[in-house]
Amino acid sequence: MQRNNILAPSILSANFNHLGEDINCVIQAGAQYLHIDVMDGMFVPSISFGMPVIRSIRKEHDCFFDVHLMVQNPERYIEEFAKCGADNITIHAESCTHLHSAIQQIKKHNIRAAVALNPATPLNVLDYILNDLDMVLLMTVNPGFGGQTYIPEMTEKIQTLRNRILSTGKEIDIQVDGGVNDSTIHTVLEAGANVLVAGSAVFKGNAEENVTHYLNILNQYQTY
Amino acid sequence: MQRNNILAPSILSANFNHLGEDINCVIQAGAQYLHIDVMDGMFVPSISFGMPVIRSIRKEHDCFFDVHLMVQNPERYIEEFAKCGADNITIHAESCTHLHSAIQQIKKHNIRAAVALNPATPLNVLDYILNDLDMVLLMTVNPGFGGQTYIPEMTEKIQTLRNRILSTGKEIDIQVDGGVNDSTIHTVLEAGANVLVAGSAVFKGNAEENVTHYLNILNQYQTY
Repeated sequence: MQRNNILAPSILSANFNHLGEDINCVIQAGAQYLHIDVMDGMFVPSISFGMPVIRSIRKEHDCFFDVHLMVQNPERYIEEFAKCGADNITIHAESCTHLHSAIQQIKKHNIRAAVALNPATPLNVLDYILNDLDMVLLMTVNPGFGGQTYIPEMTEKIQTLRNRILSTGKEIDIQVDGGVNDSTIHTVLEAGANVLVAGSAVFKGNAEENVTHYLNILNQYQTY
Repeated sequence: MQRNNILAPSILSANFNHLGEDINCVIQAGAQYLHIDVMDGMFVPSISFGMPVIRSIRKEHDCFFDVHLMVQNPERYIEEFAKCGADNITIHAESCTHLHSAIQQIKKHNIRAAVALNPATPLNVLDYILNDLDMVLLMTVNPGFGGQTYIPEMTEKIQTLRNRILSTGKEIDIQVDGGVNDSTIHTVLEAGANVLVAGSAVFKGNAEENVTHYLNILNQYQTY
């Protein structure tokens, strides 16, 4: 079994004056996913962007849209985000009363389904749904803003999840989001994460060079 | 007393691949306001864009940012939107329990304060706040999406509001938002609106030509 290591630059840290250009830059440099952080100002304390922005960029970009819904009751909007062009939809366990049903709703659209856990949320919320998932997103900061610092306790959480996934025999990706940069990337890769969201670390400075730099590190690690 | 006629292109209908370019285009063509529709997916059924997008475009554009909050309990975010660079903040009467207090919160930041009314909301919700406002926004469609059709009953509402404002002796702008295009623009101007939001009508086709076209019409009308 072999999972791929994937870099997912988050457009939350892009320049919205020329978002299309920023997207081309990171995708042409080799980033495999485009991470799209949707925030509603209810589940998290900021409103980022949603349907009209995704619809607009989908028209000019055919890369993988990894849509992370930081939204209260996301089941209201799964169909619409699928239609906007999501290739993966991630919903938060904390935001859904009917999590199992919401996951089935995502899968019905033949796109990838993922569940995100806030830092304090225990892994046992995955007990009865893990087999249905393509990916688990472990938040390594509290969601809501870019540029935060990695929470060290999350390393053990990544390792525990990796072991649990290994015992299922399934290829389920582990994504980490928050505080990924030069000082933390080796830690999360060694712990077993294979899909890395990076916002400020990619878009601050020369995005093309940053993507190349992080992809080189990702390639040094062989995942299980 | 003389109010200016103002065109406020709504970036909800812009191309988010090159938003900065679209903004330059309409502002250089003479549009006086940039209308920024913030939707949270709770007050209205769509999530549009919020703080990170406004902050990003503010860095490269010094035009007038007319921020329309279609957000539940907007008082939570007034300070943050003021800091993001809003020159006007419009809040919905239907979204606030403490409307008077929320208006004072906007004014504290020395920016313009406006209240928006959904099509069904009666004008008497303005009775005790009108004197505090710089502008009233009458929604001429139900908020949430671009490209909708003007609701004809709104013409009488604009006229009634114009008469009420005339009786106060104050210079309070009347903004209309929804379905403004070639077939409705004369109606709303004659009824007494002087700040016109236009989304699809401006950004569909040649935005520069569309702005020039609508500004020519606005200039034909002398407001009271």
